[in-house]
Amino acid sequence: MRLQSLDDVLIGQLTDLRSAEEQLVEALPRVAGSASTPELRQAFEHHLEQTREHVRRLDEALGHLGASGARERCEGMEGLIREGEEIVESQGDPAAKDAALIAAAQRVEHYEIAGYGTARTLANQLGHDDLADLLDRTLDEESAADKKLTKLATGGMLASGINADAARR
Amino acid sequence: MRLQSLDDVLIGQLTDLRSAEEQLVEALPRVAGSASTPELRQAFEHHLEQTREHVRRLDEALGHLGASGARERCEGMEGLIREGEEIVESQGDPAAKDAALIAAAQRVEHYEIAGYGTARTLANQLGHDDLADLLDRTLDEESAADKKLTKLATGGMLASGINADAARR
Repeated sequence: MRLQSLDDVLIGQLTDLRSAEEQLVEALPRVAGSASTPELRQAFEHHLEQTREHVRRLDEALGHLGASGARERCEGMEGLIREGEEIVESQGDPAAKDAALIAAAQRVEHYEIAGYGTARTLANQLGHDDLADLLDRTLDEESAADKKLTKLATGGMLASGINADAARR
Repeated sequence: MRLQSLDDVLIGQLTDLRSAEEQLVEALPRVAGSASTPELRQAFEHHLEQTREHVRRLDEALGHLGASGARERCEGMEGLIREGEEIVESQGDPAAKDAALIAAAQRVEHYEIAGYGTARTLANQLGHDDLADLLDRTLDEESAADKKLTKLATGGMLASGINADAARR
């Protein structure tokens, strides 16, 4: 890898995020299908739709910078998805499994929040204001998805909260 | 993997975090050594000391739960560290490389913030208040490390900020 300028760093971040989001588009249907709580399943399905739009925005951003987003594989997301798949395939109590799915999904969300936060800051520093705004929209959606998962885990959205439910068993 | 209860989920999170922190103890010296800006190198070295303490706290937490923290490898952190190593080995402009190191480190910090946030919430829900306090201390330190990296990248700590410096080249 050669990093001659901040533009190279920004393009590297966007390329990596594009691979991460694409891997997520592939993985989310199975994750959604393994959730027991309908609200959690719906949250994953909604996020799948958003993730498809995030890929489109990254293509727009890379095009804006004249970069192709050459198909490099994001190794960070690869490991995160492998962790999620272990939970998808796990046996046990449905509420405990839902709590573990939420935990894995929040690790993914935070990973993306860090990635988009960096990319947005770099875009601002390099004077790409439109690009920064575009990345900011995705960053807001990732943060909202993370907060929704916290609510599902701690009981703000469900009657009892998934975790409170499993703790009582 | 079997997830019979929220205790299983909590032990799984702590075991995973322990592996993640141990991998970080191994990786951080090389990351610190490849930083060009003295303030960034010092930040990594300081975080290495904190990370050793985080491993110790996780051993304490697992002991509290009567779990061994059997040596399972955290695949999420494995991918994140591979990404960091690509930057350590990269060639190019020192300020651009520092910016990329910060980006990789912030992905790691956010990953840990998500992990400790989940574990702390589960500990609270299960009534392990002392354990929740212990995890909260680490969570605060991870958040502070993330904020310090943002400051280094955006110029709050250095005269110009690493990224502003690389943007001018």
